Amino acid sequence: MTDIAQTPPPPYYAVIFSNERTSVEQGYEDTAERMMTLAKLQPGFLGVESVRHGLGITVSYWQSLEAIRQWKQNAEHLQAQRQGREQWYDNFTIRIAKVEREYSL
Amino acid sequence: MTDIAQTPPPPYYAVIFSNERTSVEQGYEDTAERMMTLAKLQPGFLGVESVRHGLGITVSYWQSLEAIRQWKQNAEHLQAQRQGREQWYDNFTIRIAKVEREYSL
Repeated sequence: MTDIAQTPPPPYYAVIFSNERTSVEQGYEDTAERMMTLAKLQPGFLGVESVRHGLGITVSYWQSLEAIRQWKQNAEHLQAQRQGREQWYDNFTIRIAKVEREYSL
Repeated sequence: MTDIAQTPPPPYYAVIFSNERTSVEQGYEDTAERMMTLAKLQPGFLGVESVRHGLGITVSYWQSLEAIRQWKQNAEHLQAQRQGREQWYDNFTIRIAKVEREYSL
């Protein structure tokens, strides 16, 4: 077992979500878990890797830009994004990138 | 101060290095620190974000594929890559991706 996503051969897309949390805990863990569950149900979802140690980095992988757009517009996700901006994150950057090459150990 | 990389407007490139360590500690920390120092000196280096909590994710940002290629071929880095494959990593995936869009809080 590994926490590294098993993705198909490129090309596909990555959403790199780099973030720093506020001290607000209320609702955060439950919502983060729920968003992970929901993302995995989205069409075009390929995998996710997530780690936090102060800085948080979550990279999710998607079949297409359209799949990313659909996920961004998901109603529950929109509500979570709003709470994230207002309460849970001090700072974040989201980068959307096209994976062109991949190699593994 | 933030640990989130301050990158220029896209397009630019990301190297997403997702990894799981062996229990071998010898030489790892010093080499990881040295590689961070060296990468920052490379032409075309734009920034880096790194976090480990079991799973490690390091994302480095670069001006071009050529800059990434040069860094991959750096002599000290080649030696570190060899030790990494042989001793320090149980598992890793490296993805090279073109960042097309970026937005922040």
